[in-house]
Amino acid sequence: MTKEYEKKFNRLNLPGDLKKLSYEQCRILCKEIRDTLIRTVSENGGHLSSNLGTVELSLALHRVFNSPKDKLVWDVGHQSYTHKILTGRLKDFSTLRQENGLSGFCKPSESEHDAFVSGHSSNSVSAALGIATAMKLNGDEHHTVAVIGDGAATGGLSFEGLNNAGKSNTNLIVVLNYNEMSISKNVGAIAKYLSNFRTKESYKKTKTIVERALDRIPIIGQPVKNTLKFSKDTIKNSIFRTTLFEDLGFEFVGPVDGHNLAELEDSLKKAKKMRKPVVVQVNTIKGKGYAPAEKNPGEYHGVSSFELKTGNPDVSKCDSYSTIFGCELSRLADKDKRICAITAAMKYGTGLDKFAKSHNDRFFDVGIAEEHALTFAGGLASMGKLPVFAVYSSFLQRGYDQLIHDLSISNLHALIGIDRAGIVGEDGVTHQGIFDVSFLSTIPNVTIYSPSNYDELRACITKGLYDDSGIVAVRYPRGSEKECALKKDCVSTDYEFYENKSDVLVITYGRLFREASIAFEKLKKDNKSIDILKLINLNCIDEKMIEKINSYKKVYFFEECYYNGSVSQRLKNYVHKLNVAAIYDFVPQASVESSLEQLGLSGDEIYKKLSSEI
Amino acid sequence: MTKEYEKKFNRLNLPGDLKKLSYEQCRILCKEIRDTLIRTVSENGGHLSSNLGTVELSLALHRVFNSPKDKLVWDVGHQSYTHKILTGRLKDFSTLRQENGLSGFCKPSESEHDAFVSGHSSNSVSAALGIATAMKLNGDEHHTVAVIGDGAATGGLSFEGLNNAGKSNTNLIVVLNYNEMSISKNVGAIAKYLSNFRTKESYKKTKTIVERALDRIPIIGQPVKNTLKFSKDTIKNSIFRTTLFEDLGFEFVGPVDGHNLAELEDSLKKAKKMRKPVVVQVNTIKGKGYAPAEKNPGEYHGVSSFELKTGNPDVSKCDSYSTIFGCELSRLADKDKRICAITAAMKYGTGLDKFAKSHNDRFFDVGIAEEHALTFAGGLASMGKLPVFAVYSSFLQRGYDQLIHDLSISNLHALIGIDRAGIVGEDGVTHQGIFDVSFLSTIPNVTIYSPSNYDELRACITKGLYDDSGIVAVRYPRGSEKECALKKDCVSTDYEFYENKSDVLVITYGRLFREASIAFEKLKKDNKSIDILKLINLNCIDEKMIEKINSYKKVYFFEECYYNGSVSQRLKNYVHKLNVAAIYDFVPQASVESSLEQLGLSGDEIYKKLSSEI
Repeated sequence: MTKEYEKKFNRLNLPGDLKKLSYEQCRILCKEIRDTLIRTVSENGGHLSSNLGTVELSLALHRVFNSPKDKLVWDVGHQSYTHKILTGRLKDFSTLRQENGLSGFCKPSESEHDAFVSGHSSNSVSAALGIATAMKLNGDEHHTVAVIGDGAATGGLSFEGLNNAGKSNTNLIVVLNYNEMSISKNVGAIAKYLSNFRTKESYKKTKTIVERALDRIPIIGQPVKNTLKFSKDTIKNSIFRTTLFEDLGFEFVGPVDGHNLAELEDSLKKAKKMRKPVVVQVNTIKGKGYAPAEKNPGEYHGVSSFELKTGNPDVSKCDSYSTIFGCELSRLADKDKRICAITAAMKYGTGLDKFAKSHNDRFFDVGIAEEHALTFAGGLASMGKLPVFAVYSSFLQRGYDQLIHDLSISNLHALIGIDRAGIVGEDGVTHQGIFDVSFLSTIPNVTIYSPSNYDELRACITKGLYDDSGIVAVRYPRGSEKECALKKDCVSTDYEFYENKSDVLVITYGRLFREASIAFEKLKKDNKSIDILKLINLNCIDEKMIEKINSYKKVYFFEECYYNGSVSQRLKNYVHKLNVAAIYDFVPQASVESSLEQLGLSGDEIYKKLSSEI
Repeated sequence: MTKEYEKKFNRLNLPGDLKKLSYEQCRILCKEIRDTLIRTVSENGGHLSSNLGTVELSLALHRVFNSPKDKLVWDVGHQSYTHKILTGRLKDFSTLRQENGLSGFCKPSESEHDAFVSGHSSNSVSAALGIATAMKLNGDEHHTVAVIGDGAATGGLSFEGLNNAGKSNTNLIVVLNYNEMSISKNVGAIAKYLSNFRTKESYKKTKTIVERALDRIPIIGQPVKNTLKFSKDTIKNSIFRTTLFEDLGFEFVGPVDGHNLAELEDSLKKAKKMRKPVVVQVNTIKGKGYAPAEKNPGEYHGVSSFELKTGNPDVSKCDSYSTIFGCELSRLADKDKRICAITAAMKYGTGLDKFAKSHNDRFFDVGIAEEHALTFAGGLASMGKLPVFAVYSSFLQRGYDQLIHDLSISNLHALIGIDRAGIVGEDGVTHQGIFDVSFLSTIPNVTIYSPSNYDELRACITKGLYDDSGIVAVRYPRGSEKECALKKDCVSTDYEFYENKSDVLVITYGRLFREASIAFEKLKKDNKSIDILKLINLNCIDEKMIEKINSYKKVYFFEECYYNGSVSQRLKNYVHKLNVAAIYDFVPQASVESSLEQLGLSGDEIYKKLSSEI
């Protein structure tokens, strides 16, 4: 936004005054907002394509409804940036995704206009139905609007929500933001189904033709039309309730051009008047208004930051734990035809794009469907395949029951590549990978590896696939391996002692091993020394190890994991003097470095703590 | 089955020889199987209605397909009794659901004809797709058949499975067993949708009428018909691909009369020939062939055992933790309009039937959709309602992510009534409620209560609703309160010491408090004494308590919970000498009493252990 325009905009009483703008003023506003989106995301990272696609939709929603009395629930929330700008958060928009700044998702604690928390996909319809039901019980006639993308609609939770909402008799409106793709490409039959509605005109035309045709049949026409209209069978549903959503009990409006404000407002007003569950299908173009993103929306889905002119997002850089995982898997799959790779709509994010190219017949993008991914893996494993599911730590939470029921009980063998394990940074509280060690530890037949560098990651994949049984989780952080003074050749996938004849032992694993190394180097300069025990297989706590640990005078454990259920908590049973620093609550957004520092888990903080105590 | 017939039946080479039977022989076989089902379930308990409904279907499947080369995946598995009988398990059928006997669900370790584990609903399509995909990759042309009820189809996982399966190009057949109800009554729009297909004849007729009508229109008729047949838009889909499943990419066969063997076999053969994903809709009558169950299939869904002549199932007895929970909630809801009750298709099982009657507008049966139940509860809570979700412990596993993301992160207040907590008995390994304490402990903002009698249960509900914040879980076992020598008035919902000046302390909670009391009484007869610490609020481990515990010479903890993540494991960090008996692996089916004994958690076993050590 230009400074000049920003001044004008800030004089508005938001979001109420938006209703007073002319369409021409709205058009200018949309352009100014797009500029702000592109600039801010280029600087702070975030979700660009999806937000560029919902500029007009956000404006239309705030012109037709009265937030916060009407409630807006944005699914995933990475399409809500314009909504944030329109609800008084422009002044803070440059803090997007930064420490103490605006969240990249919806957050009720941030604004009364964010009706429900978002971050994990597919929850909007269920949450909105809860809100709409409460309104109904209160005799409150306001509306609840869930805005959900076709990608999020592939998740089972949204189906459960729709299945319950259609018959609910509430003022619930589901805006289906159809942009022909979710995070990578869209997946499955629902997508195919929806694409049938792209052209409103041909749909309308054919329907009219059939009705007219029937009108023209002298004797049988009217009865057939009546049959169609009033009978309880399928054909009636097929012609007079033409969409899947109508089958689910919703009224259906659309499809609407999602970049035509007048058309959008008309449709939303129509839906509002119905006072029953309505689905409004809005067709949008991901990346609308920014050429590089329109061309390649997948690459601009979630980006760290990018160069404004060339539009180079840095999401696909080769050097990351994700790509090392994907490349290693692809290499092993060259020789082993049993290996199958599964992603839940995160082909690029989990580094499986290479595998997808080289082994397309054994690559499965199941859509945003983590539960299915695991049960599907169970089916493959039961036939002797080697399924590998690469998934972000916080999304694996969705598959807790499937891990137990469809894999562990039958001791089926599957490898889970847990990406974004530990602190994830700017995505914040909903995305932190701080629970996987805890919840996986409550399941029998699970081995958890936490490599601290690329070599170990490769070794753990091979060990997990070929030496272990049951569920094997290999967890690794977001980002890339960093230089580490103490890095040695990988000789074990269990654990390793780094001995310097100290009487102080520091235990840690994964990314924090490097932080401990930093502390080690700093202490060395002070003529102090520590020994380090690096865990790799987090289940491998044997008697010999415990005996050795207990021979130290002081023992510290630094762990990037929620404390309840953690390795340190379990180890404390055997090492009573264990001094633990772990994570004790949800962790808000900040850079990874800053979060680690605040949690007392950075090299500097480890150094400080040890300095004062040894 | 009569002895005489059984002899004949046992001479068959199963399941292959079933193909040789005439329809008349099949009819007799079905009758004999029904007799066996009714008698066995009346004696051992189990699922009656669903199994009576699938007698012909099971026979047809084994006559058309070649198990185990073709793979049968039964959803939930409580419709698979006939399948068990037909695959060589008649001789063991009287051991159904008993210790070391046949499982009440499908179990690959029990028979090569059980292709995948079942027990938790809605996993069949995903598992079958995994199996079918493996076959395809192997160049194996056999078929995989998933058999799923319309109840299980309300679960999001089955939607995720269908959404992926439709486009999979595998030999996958989904048999949709439509019986107009799941466990209680069926729920949601999908059910409504399916009921439109009940009458095949009227469907066919109307379709023909439309086509004929179009044929009779001189000029426009044929073009319209062509448009309908060949255009890419909706109307064509509506008439020529008439079902939701066709929209999802499946071929569709049916609906078929599920009690007409010839019709069933024809349809399955037709589906088999298609060599692509097919849905076959089979209409069955739950409880078919047993009048009391046909009349009241809900009550006969899962029964403990019943009187054969009157057919009285004992599922609805008033005196159980479930009904006490339901009644207390209903009583509180009389005075507090904010209270809403939610069940995932378990109105009777969780004792919410009373609430459903007295507060129908605030009662929500969401179908088999635990994820939705929790997110919906989040929506209600965000509007100031007091949502209460009553759910079996092992099914709550499905909602792990929703507990974190849609409730805990925003610290929304909801009560979870965790029914069937701990050992459940005959339902066996998939249904044991042994993980809830562990996985709930890994989530911030969760309070867990484990009352040991009805009074405490009532007190915990009130405390949880009105004094606590965040997620409050109140967990209670299957069955009813049993006489307990040490029962006192409930004065605290935190913990209570039972002091007898002993230097031995036994710690426990929930159902095991009574077992500890039994040990106490027995020891008393030996002139030995123990003190007991009964925990109620499992989060309440304070310094004062720990100090006191540590003042004892010997301390024992008996816990009905998987050890990793348990309370005893956490307590051991503060009480190093703690001697723990908990659960260290999956627990197979047996009576609750027998399981507790084998786990060392029964009164007798506690007595034995203490006897020898104090």
